[in-house]
Amino acid sequence: MVIYEMKYPNGKKFIPQTISPTISTTQRGMTLEKELNDSNTYYKEINRALIYKKPTPVQIVRVDYPSRNKARIVEAYYTTPSTTDYNGIYRGRAIDFEAKETQSKTSFPFRSIHPHQINHLKAVLQHGGIGFVIIRFCAYDETYLIDAQYFIAKYEDNKRRSLPYSDIQQYGHLITQSYLPRLNYLNIVDQLYFEEEPV
Amino acid sequence: MVIYEMKYPNGKKFIPQTISPTISTTQRGMTLEKELNDSNTYYKEINRALIYKKPTPVQIVRVDYPSRNKARIVEAYYTTPSTTDYNGIYRGRAIDFEAKETQSKTSFPFRSIHPHQINHLKAVLQHGGIGFVIIRFCAYDETYLIDAQYFIAKYEDNKRRSLPYSDIQQYGHLITQSYLPRLNYLNIVDQLYFEEEPV
Repeated sequence: MVIYEMKYPNGKKFIPQTISPTISTTQRGMTLEKELNDSNTYYKEINRALIYKKPTPVQIVRVDYPSRNKARIVEAYYTTPSTTDYNGIYRGRAIDFEAKETQSKTSFPFRSIHPHQINHLKAVLQHGGIGFVIIRFCAYDETYLIDAQYFIAKYEDNKRRSLPYSDIQQYGHLITQSYLPRLNYLNIVDQLYFEEEPV
Repeated sequence: MVIYEMKYPNGKKFIPQTISPTISTTQRGMTLEKELNDSNTYYKEINRALIYKKPTPVQIVRVDYPSRNKARIVEAYYTTPSTTDYNGIYRGRAIDFEAKETQSKTSFPFRSIHPHQINHLKAVLQHGGIGFVIIRFCAYDETYLIDAQYFIAKYEDNKRRSLPYSDIQQYGHLITQSYLPRLNYLNIVDQLYFEEEPV
């Protein structure tokens, strides 16, 4: 099966309407990613923070050069990320987080996070950065910010394979959704890591 | 022309020996990149800093799914980076830089840096991060760290199209090369941004 990701001449992205089960997982993941990217663009525009999503890591195997200055990648594969997806600077501090969606109504499965990413978040904390995980429960349209220290402790508890929704409700922080920014997660960062009211 | 980037069965990367002029530019760029990656791996191992190169940004156009769980990218293109290549955390502060090689013996041409990257470095400084540019003069095998504020000021001076080697010698900071780490640029960061002796 071949999926084309096309752009209209006006530059707007074309989203295929008929998608396979494999793709639909990816598509679902795009919603939270898009909302975070939009929020980060807004934060950047108002000079509140400088936070980016890293490019998806891809192992490039074969590149075609139809002409001297044109490179066309004709064989490549997605690779396991060694870090989290998002990082940047906020109020002078390094900020780093991973964002995940789940369809589950009862818990967030730990297998959705790569061990590399857990180790990366540990290192972020060790070096004095702000680290957390953003989890969306699609069934409830609720998005939570969960401090990395809490998340890692639960992840490393061998008896657990997932983080219950009830724990996330209790120990996580519900992110308010609005028009701009779509996900105002920095207000929670202000409260959690700067011990004061939102700026 | 088609270039294969292969891996031996032991996982080691195969570097093609016959390369076109287009590729050789890329290959040259790999030396500094590889040395910085190795240095960052070393810094990470000794817990001195957490600094990564971001994945190369690629626009994925077409993905083939030979089986349910396998995704093969069959058409993609390199895209212009909107940020610098390297960032991370050092001594509690956000650190962000771009690294470039030049074959020139007399100056570093500003066209080697994307305007987006200059704007990104400006934003890094504005948000309280440490920002700089690392430039290697291949002809002399010398690698310099140049503070972002100085670099941006020269870049924005409309009379200039490049930064003379003599200015870089005077206002930049020569990075010492050793076995481990290959490029000990954090010693210069200590001196420049922490106003003290190297830790």
